[in-house]
Amino acid sequence: MTAPTLTRPTARSHPRPTPATPAIVLADGCLATLEGKVAHGLVRGSDRFSVRVVVDHTLTRCDAGQVVSGTPTGIPVVATVADALRHAPEATVAVVGHAPHGGRLSTELRALLMQCAAAGLDLVSGLHDHLADDAELAGLVAARGATITDVRRTPPARELRFWDGSVYSVRARRIAVLGTDCAIGKRTTSRMLAGALNDRGVRTEMIYTGQTGWMQGGRYGIIFDSLLSDFIAGELEGAIVACADDIDPDVMIIEGQGALRHPAGPCGATLMLSGAVAGVILQHAPQRTHYDGLDGLPAARIPSPASEIELIGHYGVPVLAVALNLTGVALEDIDRVVADCRAQSPNIPVIDVVKHGLGTLAEIVANPALLQGN
Amino acid sequence: MTAPTLTRPTARSHPRPTPATPAIVLADGCLATLEGKVAHGLVRGSDRFSVRVVVDHTLTRCDAGQVVSGTPTGIPVVATVADALRHAPEATVAVVGHAPHGGRLSTELRALLMQCAAAGLDLVSGLHDHLADDAELAGLVAARGATITDVRRTPPARELRFWDGSVYSVRARRIAVLGTDCAIGKRTTSRMLAGALNDRGVRTEMIYTGQTGWMQGGRYGIIFDSLLSDFIAGELEGAIVACADDIDPDVMIIEGQGALRHPAGPCGATLMLSGAVAGVILQHAPQRTHYDGLDGLPAARIPSPASEIELIGHYGVPVLAVALNLTGVALEDIDRVVADCRAQSPNIPVIDVVKHGLGTLAEIVANPALLQGN
Repeated sequence: MTAPTLTRPTARSHPRPTPATPAIVLADGCLATLEGKVAHGLVRGSDRFSVRVVVDHTLTRCDAGQVVSGTPTGIPVVATVADALRHAPEATVAVVGHAPHGGRLSTELRALLMQCAAAGLDLVSGLHDHLADDAELAGLVAARGATITDVRRTPPARELRFWDGSVYSVRARRIAVLGTDCAIGKRTTSRMLAGALNDRGVRTEMIYTGQTGWMQGGRYGIIFDSLLSDFIAGELEGAIVACADDIDPDVMIIEGQGALRHPAGPCGATLMLSGAVAGVILQHAPQRTHYDGLDGLPAARIPSPASEIELIGHYGVPVLAVALNLTGVALEDIDRVVADCRAQSPNIPVIDVVKHGLGTLAEIVANPALLQGN
Repeated sequence: MTAPTLTRPTARSHPRPTPATPAIVLADGCLATLEGKVAHGLVRGSDRFSVRVVVDHTLTRCDAGQVVSGTPTGIPVVATVADALRHAPEATVAVVGHAPHGGRLSTELRALLMQCAAAGLDLVSGLHDHLADDAELAGLVAARGATITDVRRTPPARELRFWDGSVYSVRARRIAVLGTDCAIGKRTTSRMLAGALNDRGVRTEMIYTGQTGWMQGGRYGIIFDSLLSDFIAGELEGAIVACADDIDPDVMIIEGQGALRHPAGPCGATLMLSGAVAGVILQHAPQRTHYDGLDGLPAARIPSPASEIELIGHYGVPVLAVALNLTGVALEDIDRVVADCRAQSPNIPVIDVVKHGLGTLAEIVANPALLQGN
């Protein structure tokens, strides 16, 4: 028995396969919850994997796109790995779609991965518990001649880059998409905004900062939460500089992580300062009261966008627009909720992305002079 | 040849040896610079190591304490490892006193470490380049039956703890010592403040957050900059909870790292929010204009304390006092510089720690009601 080929996305520049690799996504019990956010990203779209089927026995016979975004994508949800293999015999990889807090591998998910390994599939996972460290699972993968990619495997310090200020020489305008909570749509907005800018002829690249961004085919970026903290700034700068050197885009959209004041790990200052961004798009879900996963805690109330805009201003960065995530707001309440948000931030465009699409945001980013008259 | 015993401070609670281990500190070429900040801490005092001699060939025959703080400590500086061994034949360990940006092992320092290893000393290092990964050095250490402790060796994710809010149940008042720059005296103020509080009968423990804090004998804490970023908040919380469970102090002083707006890696929000602190002491060096190591960069100007206090207020935390580091200010200018700082922050005590000692700070922390009348 040979060891499986272990790979991990450590370099700052990541070519993606053409065509995308046909994939099964494992999201058992979580496709309809925030824990399934990796699966959500893959269902929304990926240039690295071509998603053929999702495993979640609680949503059998649903369309995965319908579950994730309300729009059918033709990707079916099935109950078991066996069903998935029957539906998509061409799949060569199983991708873990779970993103639980702490990134642990559950017994249930491990059992599904053993079935995938037995079927000879390559395995891709962004859990902090690395699949390659599970001797039985890794042995089975190796015996089938397949591979394991632990996306969040941490590169050692000697492979990492310290921040040196070279970001200041990069021509591209850098815009960060931050949010007032985790799992609020920052990555999706980043990806769609990059698309909308490219559609308008503004050459734009997304700088991903999480596992899903890589899985979706991101070419430049970092896995923020599994890096040694001393090197995050330098690795982010390295991704920006590599992107500029390779393709010299006009705009880079930097995907945000977490939230600036989330007590389980505040995040955002590094992206703004070490990435030297020109502006921020602030994603906000007005219907949420407490940070994701911290519903019971009085100290975990989500601040208002106005307060967040002021905080971001203290970092020397203007908020160009607030992008609303209205998931869970009743249709008849949407106009009132949007009006409330506008009243609270009268000097900044507040955009219902579903209603207005990404066009308005793209115009703002492409031409910040538009802001002057607001 | 057997492998050396490799240790690293991974647990959140670290008993220290009694008596402290006699040590040689390596600080060749850096005892008088900011790069020598680990050596500075060890010379100021450690309960883990008893520092007998410092190696820095540029300062031969100086008293190390005189160089570091202007007060002789009886610790001589010598030119070579051989001189150090002659001066302190009882030493059983050599500790790396360098803290270069990026944490790399230089050729020169490696040569000194080879000499220490040949002499049979244990080696302790907080560099990101781990000594145990250097086959020749590790082999020599093993052959002599000695050990290597790479303080910044990163624990794997499976050994780490995710933040869960248990910090809110801890009785001790938590105070963070943040700073407007790196290498500005946050750790020294934290350590001395904890001492001054204990002297007043307020049972206080310092929560260290860097390698030097551990080397100085810190019992509870984390090595912030070599942790995976997703677990920093949880590991900090774990150190606080372990401290409360073990010794239930009245106050915990949390050592800050870096600076809130340092572009090479902003830091501070996690300590305030994930540590749920009641207040901040802000360390400031009015004579510095640019962040440590970034003198040429226009974007790297150090913000005013007033602006930093406002930023900290945005995180919901009051600044209880500004502690000044006046290193490098001419004696005749000190009164004017302090008066300027007071004029800029009229509502907050601004303390010249050297002149007033830690007593005033200790009284503020012990009795925040004092602040009401200010």
